[in-house]
Amino acid sequence: MQLGMIGLGRMGANISRRILRAGHECVAYDVSPDSVAALVAEGATGVDDLEALVAALPAPRAIWLMIPAGLTGGVVDGLAPLLEPGDILIDGGNSNYRDDVRRAARLAEKGIHYVDVGTSGGVFGLERGYCLMVGGPAKAVERLDPLLRTIAPGAGEIPRTPGRDGAFAPEELGYLHCGASGAGHFVKMVHNGIEYGIMAAFAEGLNILENADAGIREAEHSAEVAPLEEPEFYRFDIDTAKVSELWRRGSVISSWLLDLTAAALHANPALDGLAGRVSDSGEGRWTVKAAVDIGVPVPVLAASLFERFASRDEDRFANQVLSAMRQQFGGHQELPAGDVLEAGGRRAE
Amino acid sequence: MQLGMIGLGRMGANISRRILRAGHECVAYDVSPDSVAALVAEGATGVDDLEALVAALPAPRAIWLMIPAGLTGGVVDGLAPLLEPGDILIDGGNSNYRDDVRRAARLAEKGIHYVDVGTSGGVFGLERGYCLMVGGPAKAVERLDPLLRTIAPGAGEIPRTPGRDGAFAPEELGYLHCGASGAGHFVKMVHNGIEYGIMAAFAEGLNILENADAGIREAEHSAEVAPLEEPEFYRFDIDTAKVSELWRRGSVISSWLLDLTAAALHANPALDGLAGRVSDSGEGRWTVKAAVDIGVPVPVLAASLFERFASRDEDRFANQVLSAMRQQFGGHQELPAGDVLEAGGRRAE
Amino acid sequence: MQLGMIGLGRMGANISRRILRAGHECVAYDVSPDSVAALVAEGATGVDDLEALVAALPAPRAIWLMIPAGLTGGVVDGLAPLLEPGDILIDGGNSNYRDDVRRAARLAEKGIHYVDVGTSGGVFGLERGYCLMVGGPAKAVERLDPLLRTIAPGAGEIPRTPGRDGAFAPEELGYLHCGASGAGHFVKMVHNGIEYGIMAAFAEGLNILENADAGIREAEHSAEVAPLEEPEFYRFDIDTAKVSELWRRGSVISSWLLDLTAAALHANPALDGLAGRVSDSGEGRWTVKAAVDIGVPVPVLAASLFERFASRDEDRFANQVLSAMRQQFGGHQELPAGDVLEAGGRRAE
Amino acid sequence: MQLGMIGLGRMGANISRRILRAGHECVAYDVSPDSVAALVAEGATGVDDLEALVAALPAPRAIWLMIPAGLTGGVVDGLAPLLEPGDILIDGGNSNYRDDVRRAARLAEKGIHYVDVGTSGGVFGLERGYCLMVGGPAKAVERLDPLLRTIAPGAGEIPRTPGRDGAFAPEELGYLHCGASGAGHFVKMVHNGIEYGIMAAFAEGLNILENADAGIREAEHSAEVAPLEEPEFYRFDIDTAKVSELWRRGSVISSWLLDLTAAALHANPALDGLAGRVSDSGEGRWTVKAAVDIGVPVPVLAASLFERFASRDEDRFANQVLSAMRQQFGGHQELPAGDVLEAGGRRAE
Repeated sequence: MQLGMIGLGRMGANISRRILRAGHECVAYDVSPDSVAALVAEGATGVDDLEALVAALPAPRAIWLMIPAGLTGGVVDGLAPLLEPGDILIDGGNSNYRDDVRRAARLAEKGIHYVDVGTSGGVFGLERGYCLMVGGPAKAVERLDPLLRTIAPGAGEIPRTPGRDGAFAPEELGYLHCGASGAGHFVKMVHNGIEYGIMAAFAEGLNILENADAGIREAEHSAEVAPLEEPEFYRFDIDTAKVSELWRRGSVISSWLLDLTAAALHANPALDGLAGRVSDSGEGRWTVKAAVDIGVPVPVLAASLFERFASRDEDRFANQVLSAMRQQFGGHQELPAGDVLEAGGRRAE
Repeated sequence: MQLGMIGLGRMGANISRRILRAGHECVAYDVSPDSVAALVAEGATGVDDLEALVAALPAPRAIWLMIPAGLTGGVVDGLAPLLEPGDILIDGGNSNYRDDVRRAARLAEKGIHYVDVGTSGGVFGLERGYCLMVGGPAKAVERLDPLLRTIAPGAGEIPRTPGRDGAFAPEELGYLHCGASGAGHFVKMVHNGIEYGIMAAFAEGLNILENADAGIREAEHSAEVAPLEEPEFYRFDIDTAKVSELWRRGSVISSWLLDLTAAALHANPALDGLAGRVSDSGEGRWTVKAAVDIGVPVPVLAASLFERFASRDEDRFANQVLSAMRQQFGGHQELPAGDVLEAGGRRAE
Repeated sequence: MQLGMIGLGRMGANISRRILRAGHECVAYDVSPDSVAALVAEGATGVDDLEALVAALPAPRAIWLMIPAGLTGGVVDGLAPLLEPGDILIDGGNSNYRDDVRRAARLAEKGIHYVDVGTSGGVFGLERGYCLMVGGPAKAVERLDPLLRTIAPGAGEIPRTPGRDGAFAPEELGYLHCGASGAGHFVKMVHNGIEYGIMAAFAEGLNILENADAGIREAEHSAEVAPLEEPEFYRFDIDTAKVSELWRRGSVISSWLLDLTAAALHANPALDGLAGRVSDSGEGRWTVKAAVDIGVPVPVLAASLFERFASRDEDRFANQVLSAMRQQFGGHQELPAGDVLEAGGRRAE
Repeated sequence: MQLGMIGLGRMGANISRRILRAGHECVAYDVSPDSVAALVAEGATGVDDLEALVAALPAPRAIWLMIPAGLTGGVVDGLAPLLEPGDILIDGGNSNYRDDVRRAARLAEKGIHYVDVGTSGGVFGLERGYCLMVGGPAKAVERLDPLLRTIAPGAGEIPRTPGRDGAFAPEELGYLHCGASGAGHFVKMVHNGIEYGIMAAFAEGLNILENADAGIREAEHSAEVAPLEEPEFYRFDIDTAKVSELWRRGSVISSWLLDLTAAALHANPALDGLAGRVSDSGEGRWTVKAAVDIGVPVPVLAASLFERFASRDEDRFANQVLSAMRQQFGGHQELPAGDVLEAGGRRAE
């Protein structure tokens, strides 16, 4: 089968490689001629622009966009006039599923099928394969089946879920038609929202372990905060790198994210050089907003997002307001920052 | 009626003043002779030590401790041998209610009544009166009624709750026997837990208003975070000092904490000089722990406590762990802090 | 001054009454002729349709919409062709500020000024006045000043904020021009978001008090949950109606919402007949979504929203998933709902 | 090596089996003679009481308690007088680490070593091995090394963490000396706290997917809640069983808990018969309380705990309070539960 690939960044290139290795054909385009050349060396057909890409593919075409979400709209607009009814346009990037819903409706008027594919796998995808969450018209998704199956991880060595037998279902091979246009990115969005929650659960728990020596360090504590009440219970000096390695085996929380955590802490046990200002991508935000829209409570997912905001000092004004309120309790005098107790060490609340 | 007062910090002194102004007698002691002298000048009888205090009061005595919670245990132990059956020992400080439960049981063996009084009012208490949450044996609390009534704010000009009529109940005068020993500080503890939640609600809301100009400031945003998706909806330049003043009148959220907020923001609209490192006292922590003990969900109260912790960078290791995990997604390369995107601006998750 | 009022529900009618009582003129319209007649009896000019309303007001007009947010768009569309450049259209309802931004831009093309007014006050507004948060072009808002001043509560008996003196600023009278079109409803939205947080803080705290007798009730607890570890600390029988009345006087958390709580609990101490399925309006949701958009952490405001969702069983599937996972720990056997412990009373995690 | 095992429930019996299969000796005791007999049939030496168990083991002994946490204290008290200096007492149950700290200090006075072992593995532990988190004196833990190594999973087929090479460290074999007495159960406690967070992340995310059809079901929504604003974005019919299977392969959130989720949803896609009343054991609570003690923010872990409380209706009074407050907004009239809007469909806030 033939696939046109637009965007040869790491993920686009690696997906193309999986396609080529499986014996499919790939017509590849990127703004960087070097990226195109690299893939041509591995068997792809290289082209110089979108027109050439469309021309190199016989109808009905399948063209996969693997470009930054911010650029997708423009490229779709540029491609649409070049396409014919029956062609399939695939967005494998990190688009907001709402854009899929809108684009699919617009393209459907021209008979073009729009398929959105949420793609998970990161830097390990070339070897492990990519987990593919697919949305779009059933017939178009069916036509893509040989490609999706190639890009996906396959059944691998993962133990089969009890009760499943016979031929592997697509979801057991690592790809799934999740529903109508947008469903692929919707499922991927929720996937990332869950990822934020899991990451936060590990981070919070490890933070407790890291501070389990509070009863030893207590003397360092300033008068600013409530003193540790039972220091005898917090005199543990725990090696978080070893603990995270330990939990990889036999424990209920073993997971790929734990694997990554163990690797990171082994390489850099004190996490030197990391400021702890944590970025967030759109998916975590969209997940919370979607949950709010449909009235589903997501306290954990939202808390994990807000922790990231706070890690970047986005809570600054709120905290200043709290300090200011507390100054008011203290009788309107201006106290130096960091010393908001009354002289006698007693709060007036 | 006579009251012995131990501890003449601001609250102890002001409670004594309310007692004296109402025509009661007050025997006063403090480690600082100057504090004693100041109150003697206003009509109190001053004493030099605990023995003299006990000697100056005829049995059955009523003695009020208004000292830092950390010292209360020692003073109670020192006083107990000097007291007689029928005497009442009152702890008006910020003790953990668990200490009350333990102390009351121990003193009851000697026939001494232990009464715990959670006291709210801050620097305004001398004029406004103090809201008193009282725990202990009913008979002892009844005997203290004349004093409690004097210290409390009274009915004041606050509109009466619909359905209440006739003589004012104690709770309408600002004091209440809440239950057995410990109940006073338990109710005060929950009061402070609620206070944390309310303060956080205002702080978070004002933080949204302060950042409602994000669509104007957008250019400043780095590539580190998700870009603002619809900047046209965040182009407001809102004066939080004026808004908090506004809400004091006619709005559903008018409250004393809003009054304080409006005062703080009027005095210092940009909250200059405040680092936003927010202290917490024991009560907020005890509230969450009590809720956990009895299985009551308190997501809001807990979140308000955790925000304070995070304001003091207690989330640091957790955030470093998150950054470290995200580096792992990026292919094991060490990226400089604050730049955890891949070169192409695309995350690999 | 003249005002056209469209929508004579309780708030529209009461705002009209405050206008009329102050000597202004009011031309009133409602779909219900009875509502119009009632207001005519109090001095308004009644009209039968929008055309008549516009005709009865000399240009430049000021027309206030006080109708359900869902209808506002249609009425604005119907009114726009009837209006002239320089006319002011005021939306006093609960619109999403995003609709204001869009509508203001559209009407500005025709020279019509659009002013959005967030209105707080509830059933007490007729006497107390309404807190008004106003967005729109400065000149239009200035022209409305006499009306806004009349509708607002005025300075009242609320103590003046320290540092403020001289003539009262508008915000001290209960109305404020908050910024460009949409700013009024934006501030009102955040106001309601804060309100959710405060309500939740009270509700959670009172729930702790209500369950402070867990150590007495312990025997009733099933084997389903962790047993109470230190029952001796939870043997309080606390009267939440009295406590909430108590806190109204002298305490840090005194507030109008506490007044309402005290009234509700006095009228119905056991809250009989209340199912505790808590509704939410749009503002709480929009607040969280706005915070997510601009990257402001709002764990307390979000938690208060999610509690409402959960109160309506919107957490049902999530909880079933948790139960299902826990069954898997137990060895794949299907246990009856409510009994997810192993036979030996020991969990296998 | 010899081990005495007290408590032959599933975990105690399976740990004994792993010991026996590795060629160690096991002296076994349980209150149930049948349980003892079953293990004797597999090679253990059975005894009838604690005295016989101690007598059957030459000093210095190693005795492992695998009994419900509530019974551990009594058994330790019963065993202590029978033991000699140099003996090791191991608590492999779910004890609170605080009890370990206290017990270890008491037993140390008699020269008895107390070792606490947090054990994870569930029903799969017999084959997979148990992840062991160990606390106690270094010398005692070293002596137990042959046993711990046998009980633990070993390196298995799990890919080695990058940067690790040479002989396997104990944590790579699935057991770790985490620190002083109590450290084992402390780490296990935090492990379970993290587990709660991960479970909640999955549950919340799947709940969003389950309700992604809200735009289709919209007509069913009552007037009680805010209407769905953009139903066109919530018209997905997503199969959560298939999605959770899908995510097992190649995705960032692949994990053992996801494996369990996929199995549960495959067996029972609608989760029929599950009431969603989710139990919690002590560890989740202790984790939050420890974090509060040492001032570490854990919004995600706490939220996951509170969700479980709420799933069992422990939020009931709080929700009733919220409904009661909202009734007050509505003008004091008593509205039927579930209908807290004003007649006109407009809230008065």
